[in-house]
Amino acid sequence: MELTRLVEQIRKKKSFLCIGLDVDLEKIPTHLLKDDDPVFAFNKAIIDATNHLAVALKPNIAFYEALGIKGWESLKKTIEYINENYPELFTIADAKRGDIGNTASMYAKAFFEDLNFDAVTVAPYMGKDSVEPFLAFKEKHTILLALTSNPGAFDFQTKELEGKPLYQNVLETSKTYVNSENLMYVIGATKAEYLKDIREIIPESFLLVPGVGAQGGSLEEVCKYGMNDNVGLLVNSSRGILYASKGEDFAQKAAEKAFELQSQMTKFL
Amino acid sequence: MELTRLVEQIRKKKSFLCIGLDVDLEKIPTHLLKDDDPVFAFNKAIIDATNHLAVALKPNIAFYEALGIKGWESLKKTIEYINENYPELFTIADAKRGDIGNTASMYAKAFFEDLNFDAVTVAPYMGKDSVEPFLAFKEKHTILLALTSNPGAFDFQTKELEGKPLYQNVLETSKTYVNSENLMYVIGATKAEYLKDIREIIPESFLLVPGVGAQGGSLEEVCKYGMNDNVGLLVNSSRGILYASKGEDFAQKAAEKAFELQSQMTKFL
Repeated sequence: MELTRLVEQIRKKKSFLCIGLDVDLEKIPTHLLKDDDPVFAFNKAIIDATNHLAVALKPNIAFYEALGIKGWESLKKTIEYINENYPELFTIADAKRGDIGNTASMYAKAFFEDLNFDAVTVAPYMGKDSVEPFLAFKEKHTILLALTSNPGAFDFQTKELEGKPLYQNVLETSKTYVNSENLMYVIGATKAEYLKDIREIIPESFLLVPGVGAQGGSLEEVCKYGMNDNVGLLVNSSRGILYASKGEDFAQKAAEKAFELQSQMTKFL
Repeated sequence: MELTRLVEQIRKKKSFLCIGLDVDLEKIPTHLLKDDDPVFAFNKAIIDATNHLAVALKPNIAFYEALGIKGWESLKKTIEYINENYPELFTIADAKRGDIGNTASMYAKAFFEDLNFDAVTVAPYMGKDSVEPFLAFKEKHTILLALTSNPGAFDFQTKELEGKPLYQNVLETSKTYVNSENLMYVIGATKAEYLKDIREIIPESFLLVPGVGAQGGSLEEVCKYGMNDNVGLLVNSSRGILYASKGEDFAQKAAEKAFELQSQMTKFL
């Protein structure tokens, strides 16, 4: 999906909400467990109930991989269902992959071709030749981990590397990669105070922002420091939306939670 | 598998060879493509022909993921075949995963429980809470990327972070993680000159060393600077062994290449 189309959707829906499809069999309504494919049944209901409130959907691949082959089947059915019924939604494979040259190409093929996601998250540790194979897919987007929302972000990301924090080195170095215009970045909402510096380095890039809600990030702070002329933000919520209810009304309750967030977003648009 | 058992195997076989099962359908003998599961047929033949020469096997997950559900089926059949027929082989899922808390646990479950690998490779960028969920599996091993063999390693890994190269920070910080005794590290053979410094920080840990052969790393240098009292090395070769021949004799030719490497290894043991 082209960025202009994503921005158009954001303006139209007055939303920059990304819903994280992190489906955990221990947390979904028990009545779904009787279904042949409870994960897909859950996703389908959530997507049908919330698609008008969100502009992006982001399955975290770990949750599917943990279920083995059955999990990959659920993932494939989910992405096919989205692409067929809601092609206006921007789809992100939250895979955080990172490997060298031809191996990175294999991962890129898996997510961009076999599964046909619009974007995939990628780790920067192995540098240029682990990122560029993803960027080679011209109509796709590579979302590089820069400053993550978890406590472990302080282990290395915020420490000074040659005079500036590692995450700023990642932002600056990545701008020199071939096809860097296809880059977006993961910036945790719990690190909103860093957004001013970040916007000086990458004023135009889209940011995928997890950590609002359960992890304690503030939507207001994120918008204040992170928004640009094209909005430039996809704010993700997973658990807060998905598991609002364990009853038959789970999809409706999820939509209510998504509506709450989307309503807050309209204030900043 | 316990480390003492791995060391025992190394002494017995006079080998610290790890064979990388990076199966690419475009490179395997064409006669195998008629098989229902060419990837498994290829792996089975390679494993049967080389198991006495190697102590470890390492499928790079990207190659399987790129084939979708069929690829995961081949991977599962491969690991089950190894565990059933050659339980003395140390198995590594080269997945380079890295995600936060409960998501990392999902990945750990996928590779340690569902697939029952002995070890998995993990990326350090997200810090402590992205690594410890893997370390929580007591009889398993977590192989952290430290200094990789690719050119992109110079983007961040070798740069000074608070007075010492980032990869050294990764080594030192990771020693403070809970259950850090389950850690091993990826150190590229192309960076053998760094091994002296590395051994000062982690004298006892096992190192997984890719990059000998095709990428230009020297076995002699790796042994000179990297070997410890328990050998402490698993040297990986993938393409150089797997694709020695595209004919009916591919497994035999692979065994010849593995024998060449193993013979060189005996000199250093």
